[in-house]
Amino acid sequence: MAAVNPLSSLIEQLGKLPGVGPKSAQRMAFHLLSRPVSEVELMGQVMVDVRRRIKYCATCFNISFQEKCHLCLDDSRHTSLLCVVAEPKDIFAMEKTGEFDGVYHVLGGLLSPIDGIHPETLRIQELLNRIKTHVPDEILFAINPTIEGDATVLYLSNLLKDKSIKLSRLAFGLPMGADIDYADEVTLQRAFVGRNRL
Amino acid sequence: MAAVNPLSSLIEQLGKLPGVGPKSAQRMAFHLLSRPVSEVELMGQVMVDVRRRIKYCATCFNISFQEKCHLCLDDSRHTSLLCVVAEPKDIFAMEKTGEFDGVYHVLGGLLSPIDGIHPETLRIQELLNRIKTHVPDEILFAINPTIEGDATVLYLSNLLKDKSIKLSRLAFGLPMGADIDYADEVTLQRAFVGRNRL
Repeated sequence: MAAVNPLSSLIEQLGKLPGVGPKSAQRMAFHLLSRPVSEVELMGQVMVDVRRRIKYCATCFNISFQEKCHLCLDDSRHTSLLCVVAEPKDIFAMEKTGEFDGVYHVLGGLLSPIDGIHPETLRIQELLNRIKTHVPDEILFAINPTIEGDATVLYLSNLLKDKSIKLSRLAFGLPMGADIDYADEVTLQRAFVGRNRL
Repeated sequence: MAAVNPLSSLIEQLGKLPGVGPKSAQRMAFHLLSRPVSEVELMGQVMVDVRRRIKYCATCFNISFQEKCHLCLDDSRHTSLLCVVAEPKDIFAMEKTGEFDGVYHVLGGLLSPIDGIHPETLRIQELLNRIKTHVPDEILFAINPTIEGDATVLYLSNLLKDKSIKLSRLAFGLPMGADIDYADEVTLQRAFVGRNRL
């Protein structure tokens, strides 16, 4: 008789989460069994509820429960400064700095012809339409310094260069607490090229 | 206006899983948003369903969906060899070895007076009742080599020494692939005391 592990379905489901291998999934499964039914029900309910209700903001394509996201609805934010990001999670990272008080535009990815991601795949037309009705003073690209990121910034800055909008990109250089000795050569090269005057 | 993150409730819930910090929880939340609603519903449903249906086997106190667990229902297993473990997850570990074909008894913890875990807290009386009706040839303690584990094994072996049952415990020694140079002194000492004749 084949032994049927009563936890196998739960372990399988938890193993679908990113960064969760079979061992962690088993640990999580046993943890869930040790919690009250109501707590597990709440977790399951929040998961399904958030997933069902989430949609994209009609203005900036950030994730939102409403037609417009909480950042676009916030009157205290400056629409004159527009930050272009690849994914909604980049907005979360920018918001954590507490430095940025402008608005966002989510492209929905980065140019990568090899993966079938062309300019039409991204929300570039939406960006152009948006800045037509409300021209920002500055567009900041908060885009990863990767091949795809660089290509996307190059493509967009070519599209936008004739409009009288200041274009900028997050600075490259050594991360805080870094050791020059251990920095990779590309980072060090970019830190040198972008050196700051004291 | 306070910015309300639509993912905060989901991140909070996922952060309750063991080994999941705020960063991992956020990553998991974004992953769930990228999956179809049906997939997230299935995950939530399995979590709640397994948690609701799980109970303890009436014989060995392993987790089970039925009155008796799949191991106690399996006629091919030898009831003459009884393995005593602290928690159901230890059964999973033993089963993975593929070596053991006896049955189990889950104590539900290890003696630890400082944490309020006394002999009455554990399923020791259930173990005594069980071996009264069906005397096994051997009782194997698959109990962690910790202070609480050693105390529990000592307590149980004192209780059981007058019955004509062979008592055994998992071997201590160097783990596979270990380097003697790096082994801690207690492990090395136990490996020496329990040395095998060639």
